[in-house]
Amino acid sequence: MQIVIPLFDSFAPLDAVGPYQVLVHLPGAAITFAAQRPGGVSDASGSFTLQAQASFADVPHPDVIVVPGGSGEADQLRPGALHDWLLEADKTSTWTSSVCTGSLILARAGLLAGREATTNWQALEELERLGVKALRERYVFDGKYVTAAGVSAGIDMALALAARIAGDDVAMAIQLGIEYDPRPPFNAGSPATAPAQIVAAQRSASRFAGAKAAN
Amino acid sequence: MQIVIPLFDSFAPLDAVGPYQVLVHLPGAAITFAAQRPGGVSDASGSFTLQAQASFADVPHPDVIVVPGGSGEADQLRPGALHDWLLEADKTSTWTSSVCTGSLILARAGLLAGREATTNWQALEELERLGVKALRERYVFDGKYVTAAGVSAGIDMALALAARIAGDDVAMAIQLGIEYDPRPPFNAGSPATAPAQIVAAQRSASRFAGAKAAN
Repeated sequence: MQIVIPLFDSFAPLDAVGPYQVLVHLPGAAITFAAQRPGGVSDASGSFTLQAQASFADVPHPDVIVVPGGSGEADQLRPGALHDWLLEADKTSTWTSSVCTGSLILARAGLLAGREATTNWQALEELERLGVKALRERYVFDGKYVTAAGVSAGIDMALALAARIAGDDVAMAIQLGIEYDPRPPFNAGSPATAPAQIVAAQRSASRFAGAKAAN
Repeated sequence: MQIVIPLFDSFAPLDAVGPYQVLVHLPGAAITFAAQRPGGVSDASGSFTLQAQASFADVPHPDVIVVPGGSGEADQLRPGALHDWLLEADKTSTWTSSVCTGSLILARAGLLAGREATTNWQALEELERLGVKALRERYVFDGKYVTAAGVSAGIDMALALAARIAGDDVAMAIQLGIEYDPRPPFNAGSPATAPAQIVAAQRSASRFAGAKAAN
C-alpha cells in the first residue's frame, strides 16, 4: 500500500507528521513525501525543512493521499502542479484525505463538490463557499474522502482511517504505540471552549478574517 | 529565546514535531533542529528526513532543549556527541526537556539523577534503573527538567512548558491555533485502557521486553 503526503511551501509540519506517525505503523504501508520536485520543503517559519523523496510525477497512483494544510495552502491554486497531480491521483486512490486547510486544496480541485467535509475552525466558511457541506467535526468521512479539522486533528483522523484500512485492533495498537492518551493542560483547543477573548483575537488575526464570522 | 531540538538517527518524528508545532508559536522564540553535523536526519523507516540546520557546536547555549526519543535512542550512549553537547548545554539552559525515550538519553547523561521524570510507558522500568524516580504521568516537571510520556505526549508537555514560559493565555492561544481538542476514535492510548491482548503483544515486542514487567 502506497501512501503519499504531498508537500508545498509553508505547509504546517504537524498536519503532515501527525498522520505520518500513525500510518507509518500500518502493516504493509510505505509512505512517501512528494513535492513538485524532490528536495527540501519548508514551513512558514523556515525552521522546519522536510525532505520530499519523490516528485509528483514519480508517484502518480498512490492508494492513500494525505494533503496537509498550512498558510501556504493559499498559493496552491488551480491550475498548478499539486492540483494537477491530485486530480489524476484521486482517480485511482482508495482514500483521499486532508488535514486542516488541506481540504481547501481538495475543494478547489473540485474533489469535494457537494460532499460533507471539515477543516480548521477558522476556514469552515471558506470551505462552505467552495461548494462543500462544511461540518464542525473532528474528522469527516464521505465516501473515500476523509477530512480532518485543524492541525492536531490529523492524528485522530489517521487513527480512524487506519481502522478502516486494517481494522480496529491495528488502529488501537498504533494508538498505544504512540501513547495517544491526550491530556492537554487547558481546555482551549476549540472555539467552543477557549476563553472568548482568545477566540476573538485569533479570529481577527486570521487570514480568513474577511469571511463573515458566523462560526 | 533559542530553542534547540537535537536530532539523531532513528528519532521518532512526532516526538520532535509535536513540541515544535507548539513552541514555534511562542513569541520571540527561534527553533533550531541540530545534529552532530548539519544535514538530513532520518527516522527508523527511512521515509522521513528532517533537515538539521546546525551542528551541535553551532548552538552551545540554547535557552530551551527538547530531546526527542525513538528507537535510535539506544545508540545515543555516553560518551557521544549528543551526550557531550547535552552536558554542556544543560549548564546554561533555562529548561531541559524530553519526549518519550528522550528521557533515557537525559538520564544516561546523568541529568536526571534522583529526579522525578517520565517516559514511554514501556520504558518506565528502564528509566527507574537509571536512577530516576519514574512516574506514570503525561508529563513531569522537576525543577527545570520537563519530561513527557510516549510520542504524542510531547504536545501536552510543550503546551504546559509554553504556559510556564509565556503565561496561560499564550499557551491557550497556541492550543486553539493548532485546534488541539483531541478526540481519539478509541480509548487505547494507555496500557490502563487498551485491550489487554494489545498491551501484552506490544509489551512482548518491545525492545525493553527484557525488563521485569512490573508496569
